[in-house]
Amino acid sequence: MRRLSVQLPGEVRDRSYPILIGPGLLDDGATLRNWVSGREVFILTNATVAPLYLARVEAAFSDCRLGTLVLPDGESHKHLGTLDRIIGALLEQRHSRSTTLLALGGGVIGDMTGFAAACYQRGVDFIQVPTTLLAQVDSSIGGKTAVNHALGKNMIGAFHQPRGVLIDTDVLATLPQRELAAGLAEVIKYGCIRDLQFFAWLESNMPALLARDPDALAQAILRSCETKAEVVALDERESGLRAILNFGHTFGHAIETHTGYQSWLHGEAVAVGMVIAARLSAALGMLSAADADRIEALVRAAGLPTAPPSDLGAAAFLDHMAVDKKVVDGRLRLIVLDGLGSAVVRGDIEQGVIVATLLAAGAPHE
Amino acid sequence: MRRLSVQLPGEVRDRSYPILIGPGLLDDGATLRNWVSGREVFILTNATVAPLYLARVEAAFSDCRLGTLVLPDGESHKHLGTLDRIIGALLEQRHSRSTTLLALGGGVIGDMTGFAAACYQRGVDFIQVPTTLLAQVDSSIGGKTAVNHALGKNMIGAFHQPRGVLIDTDVLATLPQRELAAGLAEVIKYGCIRDLQFFAWLESNMPALLARDPDALAQAILRSCETKAEVVALDERESGLRAILNFGHTFGHAIETHTGYQSWLHGEAVAVGMVIAARLSAALGMLSAADADRIEALVRAAGLPTAPPSDLGAAAFLDHMAVDKKVVDGRLRLIVLDGLGSAVVRGDIEQGVIVATLLAAGAPHE
Repeated sequence: MRRLSVQLPGEVRDRSYPILIGPGLLDDGATLRNWVSGREVFILTNATVAPLYLARVEAAFSDCRLGTLVLPDGESHKHLGTLDRIIGALLEQRHSRSTTLLALGGGVIGDMTGFAAACYQRGVDFIQVPTTLLAQVDSSIGGKTAVNHALGKNMIGAFHQPRGVLIDTDVLATLPQRELAAGLAEVIKYGCIRDLQFFAWLESNMPALLARDPDALAQAILRSCETKAEVVALDERESGLRAILNFGHTFGHAIETHTGYQSWLHGEAVAVGMVIAARLSAALGMLSAADADRIEALVRAAGLPTAPPSDLGAAAFLDHMAVDKKVVDGRLRLIVLDGLGSAVVRGDIEQGVIVATLLAAGAPHE
Repeated sequence: MRRLSVQLPGEVRDRSYPILIGPGLLDDGATLRNWVSGREVFILTNATVAPLYLARVEAAFSDCRLGTLVLPDGESHKHLGTLDRIIGALLEQRHSRSTTLLALGGGVIGDMTGFAAACYQRGVDFIQVPTTLLAQVDSSIGGKTAVNHALGKNMIGAFHQPRGVLIDTDVLATLPQRELAAGLAEVIKYGCIRDLQFFAWLESNMPALLARDPDALAQAILRSCETKAEVVALDERESGLRAILNFGHTFGHAIETHTGYQSWLHGEAVAVGMVIAARLSAALGMLSAADADRIEALVRAAGLPTAPPSDLGAAAFLDHMAVDKKVVDGRLRLIVLDGLGSAVVRGDIEQGVIVATLLAAGAPHE
């Protein structure tokens, strides 16, 4: 087992928390119980994960009053209506301000559980037990919680840090291949934005990762979590550096909004977004065409899409991007690479260059 | 004009903010503009307040991109559905993370605007311009924001402090008498929990307050805001002291939940709650019967109700109270007085004593 820490100061108490990574950790009941300060626990999971892993997690809380809510699976349920349902279940089961919520699932469950914890009675504790690769390497760490609005992804949310993140690498054995690939998109992202050596390691080890070699997966998760924890500790509220974690995401969110959070997985949309952002970086003369090719090749090697949906025109793309959270005072800010393994935020990119990049990526004009 | 300050430290920046109190402040555009850091402003108000005061507030932001949303008036609209509508309006009008929301209205507008500001893109700035006495002396100060759930009042919310609170005492001239009285309930509360001298002053000046004597109202608002700011600065997140501000509120919330947030104003429910809490304090031997009588007499003198709705039985009362945020690990915590002008939190009160007090207050047995 490996142990990392997200280092965060606090006004009232230190908000630093551990990330544990290893096989079989779902059965480490003592650790889970230790992260609960009261005697009330409420587990949120979904219909896919519950039959596989819920009972093992519940076993940790035999001395607690335990509630469970099994939600339908999928990003299309990540909205205020589901939040209302979660809060209703907490109230019906009389959970108090000293309860702890536990997210057992992927990014959707983690984001909703975290936001419910941020809001319920103005804030209760929560724990992340991510069961998808994407949640393990990205969304479960860093305290970004949210639900979607019909007009924009993650537009209703809060910064609310978990008390701990428990990553059982064994659960990836049951993950559908498409979900595994979606998680690899975020893994590739860390290489692109901050770690050239890791990018090269991924190029060599992609076949092992896709074959779910436990050592390769553990290494990829560890390195991803290290990078994420480091960036979050430096800039929790995304006033600067943390924005680089959104590499590929502004383009990706446009795809997700366009497709109604239904047909594309988040990681798939981010994969295409990274390819476009790499091409944009090349168009700006900041990244070599060869390095942009390397990114596209690695994305393709992971079994991920590299082109946007054929019915998403460049104009609509820009329109969706204009509501992104990276817009500040009317200016779109994009994450681009100034070399492979190094990302910067740019707020001065000509719209014409973006449009040309989108068209070159295959987006129709209208 | 009087200027107070809520003193709050911050991890990233100092979060202290000013409260300005005086006549005609709605026309102090320079102050309002100065509290906006970007160039985007979104005003939330309701159909009652908008025709009276909206144009004067809008005038402050002639150099900003300005959006406005006029909501229906009333506590029954303080729910997630309205939050969804607010977020939708912000997204449609392309407000970015650097926008500032402004609450122009009473407690409902303030609570919803504050929560929308806490959630929109994971947090934007907001300003409070309270137009009811209740909002001026209580809900606009201290950063408690929330919406109601069908199963409980203020159950979905956040601590999110405004950048400033502008209290124009002239606006009380247009306030319906019933709303004025509801605000006086919270004013009386400050006397009960922390300020015997102020309580006595209120006993002498209640006729002047009800006649809207400007000097008397200004004095009552100032003293109330001073007390609120002091308590919030000492315990922002309500880990201890701040709970005394909920004197009368647990009983009051039960009345509001029972009546569906429709027929009773918050201040009216709190008024009855304070009378019950005072009687409970007397039953516990902590407060003299004479002082409980003084509280009931002052509540009555303000034109406020002193008995709960006749169809709310003691058992249902307890049931509603059991979902209150003051419940910790299954134990109901209530604010009681250990003498007039001094409040304490008690978590060990026998249910039999509470039931007897409710029955004596006029609640039917079932």
